[in-house]
Amino acid sequence: MDLKAELQQCLRKDQVTDNETVRERHSRDESYHTARLPDVVVFPESREDVVRVMRFAHRHGISVVPFGVGSSLEGHVIPLKGGITLDFERMNRILEIRPDDFQVRVEPGVTRSQLNRELKKYGLFYPVDPGADATVGGMAATNASGTTSVRYGVTRDQVLELEVVLADGKVIRPGGSAVKSSSGYHLPGLFVGSEGTLGIFTEIRLKVHGIPEEVLAARASFPGIAPAVRAARAIQSAGIPVARMELVDARAIRQVNRHFQTHYPEQATLFLEFHGNEAGLQRDASFAEELSSDEGCDDFLFETGSNARARLWEARHHLVYAFLHGIPGKKQMVTDVCVPLSALSDSLEHACRLIEASHLTGAVFGHIGDGNYHALLMIDPQDRADMEEAARINAALVDHALDHGGTCTGEHGVGSGKIRYQRREHEEALDVMRGIKQLLDPKGILNPGKIFGEE
Amino acid sequence: MDLKAELQQCLRKDQVTDNETVRERHSRDESYHTARLPDVVVFPESREDVVRVMRFAHRHGISVVPFGVGSSLEGHVIPLKGGITLDFERMNRILEIRPDDFQVRVEPGVTRSQLNRELKKYGLFYPVDPGADATVGGMAATNASGTTSVRYGVTRDQVLELEVVLADGKVIRPGGSAVKSSSGYHLPGLFVGSEGTLGIFTEIRLKVHGIPEEVLAARASFPGIAPAVRAARAIQSAGIPVARMELVDARAIRQVNRHFQTHYPEQATLFLEFHGNEAGLQRDASFAEELSSDEGCDDFLFETGSNARARLWEARHHLVYAFLHGIPGKKQMVTDVCVPLSALSDSLEHACRLIEASHLTGAVFGHIGDGNYHALLMIDPQDRADMEEAARINAALVDHALDHGGTCTGEHGVGSGKIRYQRREHEEALDVMRGIKQLLDPKGILNPGKIFGEE
Ligand SMILES: Cc1cc2nc3c(=O)[nH]c(=O)nc-3n(C[C@H](O)[C@H](O)[C@H](O)COP(=O)(O)OP(=O)(O)OC[C@H]3O[C@@H](n4cnc5c(N)ncnc54)[C@H](O)[C@@H]3O)c2cc1C
Ligand SMILES: Cc1cc2nc3c(=O)[nH]c(=O)nc-3n(C[C@H](O)[C@H](O)[C@H](O)COP(=O)(O)OP(=O)(O)OC[C@H]3O[C@@H](n4cnc5c(N)ncnc54)[C@H](O)[C@@H]3O)c2cc1C
Repeated sequence: MDLKAELQQCLRKDQVTDNETVRERHSRDESYHTARLPDVVVFPESREDVVRVMRFAHRHGISVVPFGVGSSLEGHVIPLKGGITLDFERMNRILEIRPDDFQVRVEPGVTRSQLNRELKKYGLFYPVDPGADATVGGMAATNASGTTSVRYGVTRDQVLELEVVLADGKVIRPGGSAVKSSSGYHLPGLFVGSEGTLGIFTEIRLKVHGIPEEVLAARASFPGIAPAVRAARAIQSAGIPVARMELVDARAIRQVNRHFQTHYPEQATLFLEFHGNEAGLQRDASFAEELSSDEGCDDFLFETGSNARARLWEARHHLVYAFLHGIPGKKQMVTDVCVPLSALSDSLEHACRLIEASHLTGAVFGHIGDGNYHALLMIDPQDRADMEEAARINAALVDHALDHGGTCTGEHGVGSGKIRYQRREHEEALDVMRGIKQLLDPKGILNPGKIFGEE
Repeated sequence: MDLKAELQQCLRKDQVTDNETVRERHSRDESYHTARLPDVVVFPESREDVVRVMRFAHRHGISVVPFGVGSSLEGHVIPLKGGITLDFERMNRILEIRPDDFQVRVEPGVTRSQLNRELKKYGLFYPVDPGADATVGGMAATNASGTTSVRYGVTRDQVLELEVVLADGKVIRPGGSAVKSSSGYHLPGLFVGSEGTLGIFTEIRLKVHGIPEEVLAARASFPGIAPAVRAARAIQSAGIPVARMELVDARAIRQVNRHFQTHYPEQATLFLEFHGNEAGLQRDASFAEELSSDEGCDDFLFETGSNARARLWEARHHLVYAFLHGIPGKKQMVTDVCVPLSALSDSLEHACRLIEASHLTGAVFGHIGDGNYHALLMIDPQDRADMEEAARINAALVDHALDHGGTCTGEHGVGSGKIRYQRREHEEALDVMRGIKQLLDPKGILNPGKIFGEE
């Protein structure tokens, strides 16, 4: 069958391509996972387009992989069985902004920065902030989160309603525009995080939030990881409404200093942000300073102006670049576990020791208000020793997290990279997940080979 | 088959009864729905007991209805096909309190007040507060919420992990103790709100929260519903961290005054609560007062001491009693819709007009920060005219909510009472829900006749 020609009949000609460069761009994500070309790339412009593609694919048993901007990190968008990649770049309309309802309805291809540019006009913002300028569809499909989740929650917490095209082309709209409901099973929460394996999102209704009256950023260095984590926990326990709470280890600060010729104290450093009103924030900042100083911090700095805030956080923002550009020829591998807060200090120190003992350059940083952290490892994907060592560290971190009641992925998702841990993490619950996959995609055409492996 | 004798063989003798009084107590909830006796009532004491019962019930195709304290309001616990009612009163242990992790693990029979009594010792509290002293199992199964959900979220937002006994006696433990995860499909969110139709919860891990440094309560009366709602919205939009936001209509205040000989202004009244630190709260309260006065409120009162706070909120707390005890011989019917915030004012006024035009005594109140409100209607369940009128008002409220993108139940759940609206609310998504029910309970033995009707 001539897949391209058939699909061009379903849609318009310019919506379907088998151009090598385009397929190449859709063969990989931002990780080290081995690329594989899709047979064709399709650019839907409406729900109806997606319905047509799915009906066709379902009839012929052809794989379909939805694609946002491909910034995921566990091989999510790699079309392991070829077939069709559905790229949502043309479905990037903001359909509705309802300031009175603190909600917005968008097509899946809308990016985070595009959305926030538009929302700003209404005094609103969308808080979920993965490092990349990801699409709303991709963020919903991976249950993305990030620096602000300690305050505003993860993507699943923001999704009020989805429009989903199922494997056979049927369309459902789980959820609604009320902020809560006890009506029927909660399907939006099931589809969020399903990584394109249960259905294709063609519309997403999100909660948005009022831009806080005042924002205060802070930076504080500590004599070690453990005191930094204790200070962070004290700040949270005190009920101080912290909106971001990032830890960066001494190793990462050293790399930033080296690459940017800066002079940050080469210590475990907390980057904090508070949202609130002026009176409350001043009080919160002093209290946070006091709690930090109890843990040996003597340089608690804070700022409210937006430029000054950005400067204060510079080392955090430039961290990845300092490694990527400072160590040419190597790529990054980013691990991603999440542990209960009580296990965090141990878990971070364990990660630091692994890097210390390794031949790989790396660092540890994380959204520690949620217990979520990453080891950044610089590798040459062609170098077997590098790859084996990175895999060994990744596995040791996951084992440690699972031993302590944590999860093998806090925010990046399973993709291909975390399949091997699914049975251990979920035990019998994995069979229920498989049952649901089988129910919704009996032919296994939706992003095959992801989340579930052969067992 | 002698059901009682058989089950007494699976468990201990004193765990199974067909005593008439006990069965009678398990034949109804707190609503007007027609009672029906279970054949036996079983009191499990462990997960293993539940597994034994489910294996037995599955083999013989006998219905099983889990039961907390029976405070639900849509007929949830009524055993429509008789069979076994599983009462969790003996599974009421608090298994683990982890203050450092802000989490607790409990058996399903633990009640809200029991949990909070224990948590207080650690400076913690569990925020979800339905009016009744419900069990954690019942709250999880209905996705209960209430006055504090505007700040802390609904039950689904608190559930980190569940232990679930499936229809055939298999045990799964979806979720974990990390506060977030992108690993696999999110099953806890699917089971929460499933009303005993997908599985039986035998353990629940919940997020808990630090008791706020300072609590400020406020009461404010307004010249009408619309200005009260506008003031509430202004307070939310200003980013003031409101922890409770209740509206009570003039009719309800009048009934409170009449019954308790009080003299509250008989106007639409907002009851507010703010959680935070002293400096921030004073600022928040003045700001809220200013925003309220813009909407015609000239009696914004606030208090921080715990007795004074309780006095300020008295009319809200005594509302249901004022009707139940003030109008002897009648029972209450409580409707429960939730609408987008922009539709709230209209929706509330529509509800008031329906009551105004009705022969039934009633009032309107709600958790309006979430757009969730109730009409309280006083009825004699034996009186056909009362019942028909209440049903008519209920239906009109649901229709109005669905017309505006809302839901037929904001927090009480579907039970039997809201089945008729499921197709209209969920359209094709209802088929997916049915598919999941069929997948997990192919014999239809778990709380049969709830959520789904014959279509
Ligand atoms: C430098 C860097 C930093 C990062 N930091 C974070 C972080 O802090 N937190 C975090 O969560 N992630 C982070 N990520 C990972 C990544 O940005 C997120 O996973 C993001 O959500 C992916 O969005 P995307 O638009 O790139 O989706 P893609 O990578 O294109 O796709 C991701 C998954 O979503 C599916 N999908 C895409 N669109 C749809 C749709 N319309 N319907 C159904 N399924 C769909 C795909 O099939 C795939 O399985 C980071 C990545 C990089 C490169
Ligand atoms: C005066 C009053 C005010 C109320 N106000 C509110 C309110 O503000 N917000 C709100 O949400 N609700 C409210 N309710 C309703 C009710 O309190 C809630 O629905 C509550 O969650 C029910 O808990 P329960 O322990 O009584 O459960 P039950 O009524 O015993 O059971 C409820 C459902 O949960 C299932 N269930 C119970 N235990 C388990 C288990 N272990 N595993 C699986 N399923 C189980 C049952 O089968 C049933 O379907 C109110 C009720 C009253 C009487």
